[in-house]
Amino acid sequence: MRINLVLSVLARVLQLELAILFIPLAVAFFYGESTSPYLLTMGLLALSSLIFMLRPKSNKALRPKDGFAAVALSWVAISFFGAFPFYFSGLQLSFIDAFFEAVSGFTTTGATIFTTMAQVPRGLIFWRGLTQFIGGMGILLFMMTMTASSASGVNMLKGESTGPTASKLLPRIRETARLLYRIYFTLTGLLALLLWFCGFPLFDAIFTAMCTAGTGGFGYRDLGLAAYNSPLAEGIIALFMFLFGINFTLYFYLMRRKVRDFWADEEFRLYLGLTLAAILLITPNIFTLYGSWSTALRHSAFQVTGVISTTGYATANYANWPAFSKAILLLLTLCGGCAGSTGGGLKVIRILLVFKNIKSEVGKLLHPRIVRTNRLQGRNVPDDAMKATLMYFSLYALFFICFSVILALENPDFEGVLAAVLAIISNVGPGLGSMGPLGNFSLFSNIAKITLSFGMFATRLEFYPVLLLFAPSLWHWDD
Amino acid sequence: MRINLVLSVLARVLQLELAILFIPLAVAFFYGESTSPYLLTMGLLALSSLIFMLRPKSNKALRPKDGFAAVALSWVAISFFGAFPFYFSGLQLSFIDAFFEAVSGFTTTGATIFTTMAQVPRGLIFWRGLTQFIGGMGILLFMMTMTASSASGVNMLKGESTGPTASKLLPRIRETARLLYRIYFTLTGLLALLLWFCGFPLFDAIFTAMCTAGTGGFGYRDLGLAAYNSPLAEGIIALFMFLFGINFTLYFYLMRRKVRDFWADEEFRLYLGLTLAAILLITPNIFTLYGSWSTALRHSAFQVTGVISTTGYATANYANWPAFSKAILLLLTLCGGCAGSTGGGLKVIRILLVFKNIKSEVGKLLHPRIVRTNRLQGRNVPDDAMKATLMYFSLYALFFICFSVILALENPDFEGVLAAVLAIISNVGPGLGSMGPLGNFSLFSNIAKITLSFGMFATRLEFYPVLLLFAPSLWHWDD
Repeated sequence: MRINLVLSVLARVLQLELAILFIPLAVAFFYGESTSPYLLTMGLLALSSLIFMLRPKSNKALRPKDGFAAVALSWVAISFFGAFPFYFSGLQLSFIDAFFEAVSGFTTTGATIFTTMAQVPRGLIFWRGLTQFIGGMGILLFMMTMTASSASGVNMLKGESTGPTASKLLPRIRETARLLYRIYFTLTGLLALLLWFCGFPLFDAIFTAMCTAGTGGFGYRDLGLAAYNSPLAEGIIALFMFLFGINFTLYFYLMRRKVRDFWADEEFRLYLGLTLAAILLITPNIFTLYGSWSTALRHSAFQVTGVISTTGYATANYANWPAFSKAILLLLTLCGGCAGSTGGGLKVIRILLVFKNIKSEVGKLLHPRIVRTNRLQGRNVPDDAMKATLMYFSLYALFFICFSVILALENPDFEGVLAAVLAIISNVGPGLGSMGPLGNFSLFSNIAKITLSFGMFATRLEFYPVLLLFAPSLWHWDD
Repeated sequence: MRINLVLSVLARVLQLELAILFIPLAVAFFYGESTSPYLLTMGLLALSSLIFMLRPKSNKALRPKDGFAAVALSWVAISFFGAFPFYFSGLQLSFIDAFFEAVSGFTTTGATIFTTMAQVPRGLIFWRGLTQFIGGMGILLFMMTMTASSASGVNMLKGESTGPTASKLLPRIRETARLLYRIYFTLTGLLALLLWFCGFPLFDAIFTAMCTAGTGGFGYRDLGLAAYNSPLAEGIIALFMFLFGINFTLYFYLMRRKVRDFWADEEFRLYLGLTLAAILLITPNIFTLYGSWSTALRHSAFQVTGVISTTGYATANYANWPAFSKAILLLLTLCGGCAGSTGGGLKVIRILLVFKNIKSEVGKLLHPRIVRTNRLQGRNVPDDAMKATLMYFSLYALFFICFSVILALENPDFEGVLAAVLAIISNVGPGLGSMGPLGNFSLFSNIAKITLSFGMFATRLEFYPVLLLFAPSLWHWDD
């Protein structure tokens, strides 16, 4: 690992976090709350980034492994320091609880250790929203919008972006980063405005928009979205959860008026199809619970978009839904949003590729002499990409199994454990049972919280950057 | 599909089944039970095989797709006709129940629809044991020991054998088949003798040996193995369950006195390691339930070997064990035995290959310029084989998910559903909860039973032969 380079990336990430902390600081100041949690954290950040910058400057480039290590360490560092505002808040949180909340925020999981929001100051609430907003599109991508682009950036972009490929939409990486963030800001701002028009207080509208944009799903009111009592707002949020689960490249097509390219995207079609199919299957299954088709449809649509986009917002306690509906929601949890979106999970494109591969393998048996290639969007899918996709499935399954075993050690509710693990590794947040949409993760032990934090990092960064940290040879300095 | 060839294979399989039915017929005659269920079934078999043979003879060879189709159709046919002795037995079973029991037998799953064995005649019990014994090593492999070998055989062997590769130990396929069956018969006979010495009635000893050999795990006594009250016999069964989960190729090494090759087998080492590790982890976890280390160790060892070999025999109701132990057992269920054994599950070698691939992928990131190949037993693993292994993982996960959703439709016990599906697709048999080691599958609806029957075929034949049946172009006759 080129340690000097990696440390200089870390230093810049911490400076960025320091700059962002001015926002909750201002919010706290505005509402007359204590500003010391933010000031103390900013002091720690300034000090640490100075120490990281003491190393000699390097004019070498980040190799893939350095880029991946920089990504993994940046996410750990920003979450570690991001935990201090919670820790210093005077809410009597242990540091591990604070760290879990920060990791859950930056990875846009949305699982929380707070049992009530009544005591939590507004500045801290806003900080929670910001972690999800920044985590959604990626920390390093955000940094790249600020700093000069370089070849090194590509290796960091690869480590952080979601889905099998990181596409450079514009020739320069910095322009791509800025473009993506422009789309992201526009959609988020639009959502905040719409929610404000629906009667949300301005603070709540901005907070909810940020958490929806990152498909994180942190809540502010103890009653959840039911507190606002606005079916229209719920519909708007459902729509935007769906929108933030779409590959942002497609919005780029729309900006270039390539509407046909938008609709032709195979992943988007499957994402749309899965969403609609799930809504249509769940609605009759929960009809008897609500007694009216419109209410059943409304709850079905909201929960489906909430889960497939891996936001995790809920308007109904689906832990009490029939097993069939629960099973479909778990299925969608696993599926997740599209590649290049802020959503988590396996990503729709991987599901698509696996099905294409099943088809082509059966085809090979039928006609062994015909050379078959998997095609996506009219292009060949290289065998390497297919293998990587299948590998991703296997890694996901392995993580799911190992985490279930670890958590089962302390929790006797096996269904709850499985759903919680799935919710965590898909970065959805709420699971079923005691970890359901109205529950929280405060009951877990410290070991479980650390394990789950690791799991959130691992799946948000799609395994390899995090796995790399466990390779001893990474820790040989070379510069 | 070369329909005439496939039908002639089917005809021979049915004739084989007819021949095997003489055994339960003799048993029924010996115990003075009604022989009509077997005679009627034999009549049906004779008639059907005659009809299948009416087609013109073909002197072409089975292509891969014909071989795979022949395998899938043979298994369906032998199970379909194997259901008739149950159906004609006068036990008031529906045909679907009878079919489920036959499929569960031939696929060596061991899930049963009988709630009690008290009324079941001995002839039928013996037929259950025989289905597991024949299903364990493979129906078509058994047929090949009888008939002249041909190049066609290889394509059927590939469709039926377990694990990523079907190895021909001897140059001629028929010799290989005979050698494998010789090992199989020897081990089974040895087990039956040992159980007899332990005080099992001879009938029970032979039945239990057959069900253990196929790693099927059907039971005869309503109390299960506890009925014999012999800890020594339980220990022997545990040992033999472990032995039948080993790749039979390794016994071939032992016969050739290549003891070093036996111990050097990477898959065997992992299988042994997993078994020992699971026993050591579970024993302290269940200690408080049994109050004595020796009892805890005994139950732990039996349940672990029962589950990893996918036999599914149990001496303790592990549905009541702590979640951690249950989770480990579920993990082992998934893992299954070694390739080329009678066990089901993913197979240990696939777990090994996936971990090797994770390591090499991380290695590629660290040292992109070093060309890496995955090595197993000192040989390169071709990229195709690795891709097929990852594909198998993904197919397994997809089947698991789809089946869980289908079964969740009618069963509110979600933990029970997940465990049942896992038990079925790993061909273990008993799951947890109401489908636990002391429960049975009679409560499921007909749709669920048909779905589960399909699942048992799919995983026993490792997906492709069964998936192939759904390809429309297979059903174009060419000859």
